[in-house]
This record gives sequence, C-alpha cells and structure tokens, in this order.
Amino acid sequence: MDRPLILVSNDDGISATGIRALIDVACELGDVVVVAPDSPKSGMGHAITLNSNLRFDQFYFDDGPQIEYKCSGTPADCVKLAVGSILNRKPDLCVSGINHGSNSSINVIYSGTMSAAIEGALKGIPSIGFSLLDYSLDADFSASKRIVKTIINKVLKNGLPKGRCLNVNIPKLSYSEIKGFKICRQAEANWVEDFDIRKDPSGRTYYWLTGSFQNFDKSNGTDEWALANGYVSIVPVQYDITAYDCISELKSWDL
Amino acid sequence: MDRPLILVSNDDGISATGIRALIDVACELGDVVVVAPDSPKSGMGHAITLNSNLRFDQFYFDDGPQIEYKCSGTPADCVKLAVGSILNRKPDLCVSGINHGSNSSINVIYSGTMSAAIEGALKGIPSIGFSLLDYSLDADFSASKRIVKTIINKVLKNGLPKGRCLNVNIPKLSYSEIKGFKICRQAEANWVEDFDIRKDPSGRTYYWLTGSFQNFDKSNGTDEWALANGYVSIVPVQYDITAYDCISELKSWDL
Repeated sequence: MDRPLILVSNDDGISATGIRALIDVACELGDVVVVAPDSPKSGMGHAITLNSNLRFDQFYFDDGPQIEYKCSGTPADCVKLAVGSILNRKPDLCVSGINHGSNSSINVIYSGTMSAAIEGALKGIPSIGFSLLDYSLDADFSASKRIVKTIINKVLKNGLPKGRCLNVNIPKLSYSEIKGFKICRQAEANWVEDFDIRKDPSGRTYYWLTGSFQNFDKSNGTDEWALANGYVSIVPVQYDITAYDCISELKSWDL
Repeated sequence: MDRPLILVSNDDGISATGIRALIDVACELGDVVVVAPDSPKSGMGHAITLNSNLRFDQFYFDDGPQIEYKCSGTPADCVKLAVGSILNRKPDLCVSGINHGSNSSINVIYSGTMSAAIEGALKGIPSIGFSLLDYSLDADFSASKRIVKTIINKVLKNGLPKGRCLNVNIPKLSYSEIKGFKICRQAEANWVEDFDIRKDPSGRTYYWLTGSFQNFDKSNGTDEWALANGYVSIVPVQYDITAYDCISELKSWDL
C-alpha cells in the first residue's frame, strides 16, 4: 500500500520524551499526524471532556515531517478530535505512548495511554499503546524504539481483530538484555492505597494518592510474569467488559 | 448479619437528585457513608488524581442518618479515599449513582458512575452502579428507588463473584410500565462524534464534543435491547479487559 497514515497520541503530553521516540519510529514507517494533550494527563483512564469545551492548535517541535496538534483534552478526546475533525480520512494505525511507566495488569484501566488506543479500536483503527517501565522524565527509549518498530510493522502487515487493540509494555533493559516477546493476559494485581496526609500553609489537610502494587497472580501467562522475566508483554485488549461467566449465575437469581 | 455498612458515591456530584434517591434507599437497608465528588464528574472514566492533591470535608445536606463527605477528586478517587482513609472497616456494599443518564453499552467505559463500582470490585466489595435513562437534573427517581432496593437486597443476600460488579440501567418509565429485569451483555454500540465548532469572544475557535449513538448490535441478549423493550438491564462487569480470544492468533505472529 501507499505509506500508511499513522495517528500518534499519548498521555504524558506532547512534549514528553516518550512521544518523541514514538514519532521518530512512526515517521520511518508512514505519514504521521500527532494529536496529543497539551499537558500531562496520566491516570485519566477513559475520561472524555463533557462539561467544558476543547481547543487544539498546531504545534511545532522540530523539523520532522510530522504534522502536530496540541489539544486541551484527554487522550480519548485527542483521538475523537483527530478522527472526527482534524484528519480527512481514517488513519491506518493509531499508536499511543511511549508512556513513561508501566501500564501492565490493572494499570490498564487507569491509563490515559491505553484509553487513546482503546478509542482508536472503537473507531475501527488498528491501535497499540506502548509503555516503558521507567517513570523518569529522561528515560532511555533507544531499546523501546526498536521494539516499537517491530510491533508496528507486524500490525501494519497483519491488522488486528475488530474491536481489539494491543497493550505493549517494555521492561527497563537494554535491547540485548530483552529476551523477546510474550503474548499475555492481564495479571490479577491491584494497588493498595496509602494516602500521604499533609497540611497546607493555612493548616488545612490535603492528601496525595500513593500506594503499593500487589500482584496476586504469579502464573507465567501474565504480563507481570513476562516483564519480570525480561520479555516485552503484549496483551490484546477489548472494550467489551461484560463478565460473561456470571450471566448464568445471575439469571438464577429470580429477580 | 448486623446492619450492613454501605458506601455510596456517584459522578454527578454529591448534591445531585440521583445520589439523594440512592442514599434514601441505602439508609433503609444499612448504615450509610457517602463519599462523592464535590462537583459533577461525568465522563471521567476510570480517572484518578495523580498530578494534584485531594481534599475531602464533611458535608451536611439533610437530617438523614447517613454520614457524608464531599471530595475534590474523581469517583474512583472517592472509593479509594473511603476505603483507604475514611472508613474504619471495609464496607459490605458499594453503590454508585443513580446516574442522570444511560451507562449502557459502550457508555460504561466513559462512565464515572461505573468507575466507582469497578473500584469497589477491585477492593473486594460487592458493588453496583445504577443509572436512569433520563439526563434531566430533576428526573423522577421514584420508580428507580424501588428497582434499586430490589437489586441491593439481592446482592446483600447473594454477594457477587470476586472481581465482578453490576451495571444496572433503568428505562425512563413508571414502575408499572417496567416489565422486569434482564441479565444482559454490553451491546456493541458506539458514538460517532460531531464536534460543535464555535468562536470565543476573541475570535479563537473552540469545540464541544457531541455525537450520535449508533447501535450495531440488535440481538436480544444486549442491554440496549432490554432497555428499548421496557426492562431494567443488568450487565455483570469485570476489570480484566484481556481479549482472550485473540491470544492464540497473536502467538502465531512469530514475533
């Protein structure tokens, strides 16, 4: 085919190092339009902007061939705006990230990065969210770029099943240390909150959300296992969250 | 058992008519603590507050027996704060709503109401999100209150499977017009965006997210079918969003 049209977004904001790495790779493989939040939107889940308006403006970062827009909204808003207003045709691929930090296991439901990919899947676009297990602002994305390129090429070649996208997490290792790719399920893990309680200058109490990650699911088919053992984890994700295994039990309730 | 401890939240804000209806029912059935957003948080999905701090304060609305707190955060934050900081024991039930408007089919992933219920399920609490298909601020919740009471009583008696919660949507009908309850799956439906483009007083363009709802899934096992035919829809929901049916195909990709 002609060069594919690739939509790029993220949740760390349009200036983050991670999206710059993703844009570099995307520009090698296709024509790139970036629509990304104008400020960090981590932990936004699948939030959309209903109670206020949205703005976007063209953004100039470097002399690369991509066209970029910064948007006042969430990652899901960015994909909606791109498809519904900015682009003149549906993109061939939607990629989000590279996130600074893990979106494995339960983090997927809080993830703005993944909400952009899920919104892409809702629009019928093959979509992938990428995350590196390194929260630092100056994380080294050089190994990630090679991983990202391999996976994007596979998705451009094979497509993805309808209504499905990929959640890709990359361990914080050099390229030679990474053992390969594992197709996984989301581990049954969770956060236990521990609120950090402080006083403001007026003496009023405020709270910071902190917590510890607890993995209850040590089996080797999970994303947590893959990442802990040096593999890139790839979890196929869907937006149908029906718990089908409960339907017959609930039908027996005689409501 | 002793009177159950019931945690109540929502996404329309602590003063909304819908949460008042839910609190009334909950107070008939147990000891009630309300932790709800201090302002409307519709469409927040599973957002949590990572980049700023949280506050909560006791809130006095009426002379009911419930204890109430208004919180600066999202619905998911409210449940985290309640369980992690406000309550001295895990509640027996977490209920969210009654939402002013539908959370059926794909709306579930954008829903703040349902994020509170899903967060409850993550904490091991039987949890239910309730929504009435009436967006108006002064919607009539009288039929909904009878429906809510029936379902809460069933869940208090039977519990819910681990990691599962319920997404309950109620048609905009009188109690006598409602035909009963249907256990359903989430319909394959979606929004097609249509941005409303305006100019601000300075001449700069801004956008409002609007759209039309498209239901591609007309079969009779879905929540959309149940609601269109006068039934209350009950969809069991899970937070594991792995698309298990794609795993073997992806493994054949030879990455």
